[in-house]
Amino acid sequence: MLVPAFVDLAVNNEDWQVFAVASSLTFFVGMMLVLTCRARSRTLSVRQAFVLTTLVWVALPAFAAIPFAFSNLDLTYTDAFFESMSGLTTTGSTVILGLDHAPPGILLWRSLLQWLGGVGIVMMAVSVLPMLQVGGMQLFRMEFAERMEKALPRAAQIAAWIGGIYLFLTVLCGVLYFVAGMAGFEAINHAMTTVATGGYSTRDSSIGFYQSAWVDIIATVFMVAGSLPFLLYFQAIRGKITDLFRDSQVRWFLSILGFSILVMIVYLWRVEDWELGRAVRLALFNITSVMTGTGYATDDFALWGALAMPMFFMLMFIGGCAGSTTCGIKVFRFQVLLQTARMQFRRLLQPHGVFIAYYNGKPIPETVAESVMSFFFLFVTLFVLLALVLGLIGLDFITATSGAATAIANVGPGLGPIIGPVGNFSTLPDPAKWVLSFGMLIGRLEIFTVLILLSPRFWKV
Amino acid sequence: MLVPAFVDLAVNNEDWQVFAVASSLTFFVGMMLVLTCRARSRTLSVRQAFVLTTLVWVALPAFAAIPFAFSNLDLTYTDAFFESMSGLTTTGSTVILGLDHAPPGILLWRSLLQWLGGVGIVMMAVSVLPMLQVGGMQLFRMEFAERMEKALPRAAQIAAWIGGIYLFLTVLCGVLYFVAGMAGFEAINHAMTTVATGGYSTRDSSIGFYQSAWVDIIATVFMVAGSLPFLLYFQAIRGKITDLFRDSQVRWFLSILGFSILVMIVYLWRVEDWELGRAVRLALFNITSVMTGTGYATDDFALWGALAMPMFFMLMFIGGCAGSTTCGIKVFRFQVLLQTARMQFRRLLQPHGVFIAYYNGKPIPETVAESVMSFFFLFVTLFVLLALVLGLIGLDFITATSGAATAIANVGPGLGPIIGPVGNFSTLPDPAKWVLSFGMLIGRLEIFTVLILLSPRFWKV
Repeated sequence: MLVPAFVDLAVNNEDWQVFAVASSLTFFVGMMLVLTCRARSRTLSVRQAFVLTTLVWVALPAFAAIPFAFSNLDLTYTDAFFESMSGLTTTGSTVILGLDHAPPGILLWRSLLQWLGGVGIVMMAVSVLPMLQVGGMQLFRMEFAERMEKALPRAAQIAAWIGGIYLFLTVLCGVLYFVAGMAGFEAINHAMTTVATGGYSTRDSSIGFYQSAWVDIIATVFMVAGSLPFLLYFQAIRGKITDLFRDSQVRWFLSILGFSILVMIVYLWRVEDWELGRAVRLALFNITSVMTGTGYATDDFALWGALAMPMFFMLMFIGGCAGSTTCGIKVFRFQVLLQTARMQFRRLLQPHGVFIAYYNGKPIPETVAESVMSFFFLFVTLFVLLALVLGLIGLDFITATSGAATAIANVGPGLGPIIGPVGNFSTLPDPAKWVLSFGMLIGRLEIFTVLILLSPRFWKV
Repeated sequence: MLVPAFVDLAVNNEDWQVFAVASSLTFFVGMMLVLTCRARSRTLSVRQAFVLTTLVWVALPAFAAIPFAFSNLDLTYTDAFFESMSGLTTTGSTVILGLDHAPPGILLWRSLLQWLGGVGIVMMAVSVLPMLQVGGMQLFRMEFAERMEKALPRAAQIAAWIGGIYLFLTVLCGVLYFVAGMAGFEAINHAMTTVATGGYSTRDSSIGFYQSAWVDIIATVFMVAGSLPFLLYFQAIRGKITDLFRDSQVRWFLSILGFSILVMIVYLWRVEDWELGRAVRLALFNITSVMTGTGYATDDFALWGALAMPMFFMLMFIGGCAGSTTCGIKVFRFQVLLQTARMQFRRLLQPHGVFIAYYNGKPIPETVAESVMSFFFLFVTLFVLLALVLGLIGLDFITATSGAATAIANVGPGLGPIIGPVGNFSTLPDPAKWVLSFGMLIGRLEIFTVLILLSPRFWKV
């Protein structure tokens, strides 16, 4: 919080006081907690890990909301909490109107939240979630543990490497944005939210503001970079560059993305009679933005004809690769689901045969397959329940369903006139904002982590 | 086909010739097939059973469409095929405008198709699908096989009993409709489509035409009766009446239905400010109609406020019980999915524990759980793909998504102004009708049965 304070101070904006007050408050509460809890043992049980993970992801936005609430933007605490939850979960839905004239400190604070949220989620996906065996993430624990024997032995060192790669990508992206003509401050902000696949912009009209093909291309490249498994970058640096493109998750992700873009280009060009160049540029950028869960927009894709809506809906759900900054159901889960379904078909023909599904050349353990299938079921069920609750609050069908989808998949904009790419979440009623914040949290923490806290069995000693 | 021919002849309608020609044609092709294939052996391999099942359900509507195509209703063959597929699969989507003035032979033909389709699907669910182990239906094979040792030994006899129960329910329903004030011909037609949870009506305004509370109540009762497992009726007759209400699938179905109706009543009454009586009557009837996949309507529920759309969407997917005339994902699958998800949560806390999910007091075999989970995944995926294709054809978002849902779940009306409860499928472009017909087929045959024919492995010797 001190970083945006200094920035505001530097440009003589009164908001620096907001950050100073907020950071003192946070520091005070934090110190109190540290002092009171110092005696605790340092080894965590599985149960404590679940509680801690969820608590951290509720406490962080609660404190991160303070600057928004105290700023001169006239936000209620609900709005502020929504904004910071949307930031930390790298969702990118915003309630702030008039970003073009917002104080730089607040803008930087939003970008910082997404950037920290992004790296936080990568760390979690590499270390905590596989340990907790959440929704099939144990698939990556094994891979990780196996390779680590030959590679670096200590998790902390890997974390440092991943942090370094993340920082490097951000700096590279920022420099390229600057070269492409963005102002320095905006280049830094956008670089942070691009690599985090977050989607907060310093402009109301998002990346569309710049009307620059170069900016579009740079953003596309780095959104994709943020959607690949960071562990593979680490492998790549250690000399195994081919690993990155041999990984079946990466291949599938790039294939789905490429195929969707191609279909959309052909559709816009032949059916909707667009100029080919415009179709290529807008489809490339906006489809990448939605599928990676970033949420930048350069156009109102609600107006792209009948195919656009179901297509964007589907892409929101798919998301990127596990171990990246993206959210959604994630590509590897669809691979596991498809492989398991294929096994079912074989079993129908030979009821007594034994069939084994493979992922990335290795057999998928039964427990992983079940875990992934349950994840899919819970994801879809929660999406439906969220949409129902939003309907109950009074949102129309498209706003309710796309709002639920964009929250649980951490994308950013919804569909339809209200929360679509040219819209804003500020007009929604307060209860809807809390419901959506909950959706973002539960989607970001891979569902199981949060839901398990609601089970009575969890709290039995 | 001769039945509607005689009806038309009796009322001096020229359409009797249509049925006479169509039945001769069908008889001719049928005899040719019988004569040429007589030599074949009578035992079926699993592979042949799959091919045969799907072929039957494609050939039947193809021939059943002939009277529609030849009638004086000006239907193309596409429309006629759509109508007969919608009839035989008990979906109930219609392309015929002006039912009020349609010849009685055609009306009776539509109802007959649904009635025969309904009993056909019950027979299939009891005998063929469990044998083929489709989508977890093997759960019912075991139960069935187990009980049969003590009960009747021969499947043909059970089929006769179920047919008898089905006929009895239909007659009872028809008599009650007649007593409630429906004309005799209409009572017979509606009885057939109510028990089959089909939803074809002899009136353009469906059951809403009668404006009678008694008709609504009778329809509601028999729609529910058609959604319960027919095998349990058989048990009930053999003295185990309590079995019917001790069955966990029946309990869940009635609970979900009751709860949804209650929520909708309270919503319409308190939030939308309806009169309580009107809310009770319309919610009771229309929610039952959609959840059981019947598709009658007494009101345009698209106008019921923000909650209605997501709620009706969800109920379409749930459907009724396995072994009944309903479609959708079916209640027992949700029970299996929920139980399996619960096991996941327990496993998260005790990674090395062994947990077993139960259904109806018996452990769920691993293979059944996987089969059900794959079914759910394929159902959702196919729904999304259907919606995408309909979008590509040019339908708007709500028409495309609700059309895909109503076809694959065999409900009948969609949502939105075009294909909603007061709309009609006749205005859709031809390709959309073929896509929807395919959706009905694949939904009715529990997905696996059709999809397996598309796999190259299936055709390898």
